[in-house]
Amino acid sequence: MSPSPSFDSLQPRQFADALHALRERAPLVQCLTNIVVANFTANALLAAGCAPAMVDNAREAEGFAAISAGVLVNLGTPYEETAQAMRAAVRGAEGAGVPWVLDPVAAGAVPWRTSIALELLGAHHPAVVRGNGSEILALAGGQGGKGVESTAAADQAVDAAVMLARTHACVVAVSGAVDQITDGQRLVRIANGHPLLTRVTGAGCALGALMAAFAGVTGDALLAAAAATALLTVAADGAAQSSHGPGSFAVALLDELHALTPEALAARLKLA
Amino acid sequence: MSPSPSFDSLQPRQFADALHALRERAPLVQCLTNIVVANFTANALLAAGCAPAMVDNAREAEGFAAISAGVLVNLGTPYEETAQAMRAAVRGAEGAGVPWVLDPVAAGAVPWRTSIALELLGAHHPAVVRGNGSEILALAGGQGGKGVESTAAADQAVDAAVMLARTHACVVAVSGAVDQITDGQRLVRIANGHPLLTRVTGAGCALGALMAAFAGVTGDALLAAAAATALLTVAADGAAQSSHGPGSFAVALLDELHALTPEALAARLKLA
Amino acid sequence: MSPSPSFDSLQPRQFADALHALRERAPLVQCLTNIVVANFTANALLAAGCAPAMVDNAREAEGFAAISAGVLVNLGTPYEETAQAMRAAVRGAEGAGVPWVLDPVAAGAVPWRTSIALELLGAHHPAVVRGNGSEILALAGGQGGKGVESTAAADQAVDAAVMLARTHACVVAVSGAVDQITDGQRLVRIANGHPLLTRVTGAGCALGALMAAFAGVTGDALLAAAAATALLTVAADGAAQSSHGPGSFAVALLDELHALTPEALAARLKLA
Repeated sequence: MSPSPSFDSLQPRQFADALHALRERAPLVQCLTNIVVANFTANALLAAGCAPAMVDNAREAEGFAAISAGVLVNLGTPYEETAQAMRAAVRGAEGAGVPWVLDPVAAGAVPWRTSIALELLGAHHPAVVRGNGSEILALAGGQGGKGVESTAAADQAVDAAVMLARTHACVVAVSGAVDQITDGQRLVRIANGHPLLTRVTGAGCALGALMAAFAGVTGDALLAAAAATALLTVAADGAAQSSHGPGSFAVALLDELHALTPEALAARLKLA
Repeated sequence: MSPSPSFDSLQPRQFADALHALRERAPLVQCLTNIVVANFTANALLAAGCAPAMVDNAREAEGFAAISAGVLVNLGTPYEETAQAMRAAVRGAEGAGVPWVLDPVAAGAVPWRTSIALELLGAHHPAVVRGNGSEILALAGGQGGKGVESTAAADQAVDAAVMLARTHACVVAVSGAVDQITDGQRLVRIANGHPLLTRVTGAGCALGALMAAFAGVTGDALLAAAAATALLTVAADGAAQSSHGPGSFAVALLDELHALTPEALAARLKLA
Repeated sequence: MSPSPSFDSLQPRQFADALHALRERAPLVQCLTNIVVANFTANALLAAGCAPAMVDNAREAEGFAAISAGVLVNLGTPYEETAQAMRAAVRGAEGAGVPWVLDPVAAGAVPWRTSIALELLGAHHPAVVRGNGSEILALAGGQGGKGVESTAAADQAVDAAVMLARTHACVVAVSGAVDQITDGQRLVRIANGHPLLTRVTGAGCALGALMAAFAGVTGDALLAAAAATALLTVAADGAAQSSHGPGSFAVALLDELHALTPEALAARLKLA
């Protein structure tokens, strides 16, 4: 079922154009995310040139989603009130034609959030679902891993990703040593990035937020997910060179997200 | 209506004395703030020499406010329970004569928090209201901007700030390229700071917390708001020189908040 | 009542072995902690080689505790829902024989969380209770300090710690210039660390999380608490040498937690 990698499905120039559009339009990105990564997510969006807004209460989420360029729903630390806010935000986004991204953190490993992810996925249409291999396998009906770290290699999850993408008519992005992004027909593989990304909490969560940002400035959700992945992982390549461990890496990553030009992004991109 | 800038309303020596008092007394500052910036706010207070305490539940907020030196109420991510805690904290603060600061994040852009801000402002007396131009305009009856970033220049908001200050007998501080702080009669303009402050989430929120801290060690709310603004923006001047982007800037900002002496603060202050 | 320091109760080699086990087994640590330090805590665990998971809602906490290697319950910002989740996590941990750590942030200074700490301590059996001198004194029946900073010297709290350890058959760790850890019979004193640890929010909270991690890989709770203290404070010694203030210190601390080898830990450890 898995498509062959489409090496030419997206061209480096498209990544550069997407980043250029991001910087020009500074999209307003509503994030309903978790208490662990809210700060890093907002800083990653700001560094990349976006306008983050963490509006995650049930009274404001729906209305704010409708005026946002993109919306992130991340299930890292759901509570009763924020779960309601997530449902409201998805309603608001879909009603206004605003793309939203689902990040089903620890789906498969913990039951309640898994049910929320499946509920949102069953009744609504995210532009992108982003997770590690375990999470994507869990949403596709397989078994999840322990907690938030993927125990299934991203490669093994690609079949599940393609199935999920076709079933829900969305893009599915699987993080791993090689990131894989599919809309069910096309498959983009990106080989940038560094192991230190797994030693900083919220790198994946920030990636989901960047996908929502790019989805707000391009009509192609596959390009949005791929451009966000490229931006974060090419920035990580640079950050790894100037850092001494996970602390300084996270700081350098924000600096790189801010400094990276569209041209440098296209030049350093490693499509696999 | 707008007063002429009073270049001599506050003297650099007063800023130095206020910082000296802050370091001597290490005020206990209760922060009811948002999940995005709670960490950076606490670190900014610690770096500056204060004792932060994020007591933001409805059962403890009132009693703790009464034993604090200053209280911050920041509306970045309100929830049902924390909104109740904010009301309780304001009651506790006012009952004990403890100054409190209102930071109406995204007021005007989102309805519920705007109503909370107006409710607190209508029934109680903050020592300081701190916001960007859009937020201050919204509280004064104008239109807010998109999300948390000011779309109205600080200069345009100064009339609204003066009106708000006179109506509520409080100090109003408007962040911008030039920060403007008024008690309705006097106007202090501070020209320190750096554009990277707008690329780090929580710089403004930390400023509100520092205002609560200074209000706890000086009886003059105008001086408190101005000294906090001076401390943060002079520190930002230094941080910008030793950093490479928003990540390293945020780190250097904390280092500078810790290192800045009262004498250096007075010497580098740019009253405009 | 206070035992004499047992200089030879734990040997440096045991600290090295514990860190080696931590790196080998990468324990899954469930953290129910506060909004201020959740990010730093997760990053400290990741840097040290653990797998953090912040599962702190009432629906998932019990089940997740049962599959974790260790559980942290930190009372920094309790809410109605997270307090329920804490009770559930403790049930889940005890039912599955998983060690859990209690960090009674600001116990004695604020009533509700004090009552939660006493409730958990009265009905259940933490492997470790970790706090500053004021908090430990408060749990033992004395008076707490102002907010989260200890006003009672760690030395003065050691009698209270021994009593608490004997009463509840647990290990009690008191943070201070010299950290003191007792199981009611043995007393370990560790003299590493740096004053900048008190200028970074969440250093103590991260220490509690590291204790839960070590408790998950060693059957000796005294060794777990002592090894976590050694890891954090020896890392702090290194971080202080390469930093310029609290901002860069916190970054370097994460780098050091990642880089520190078992051999270096044993070599730099200062048992007092």
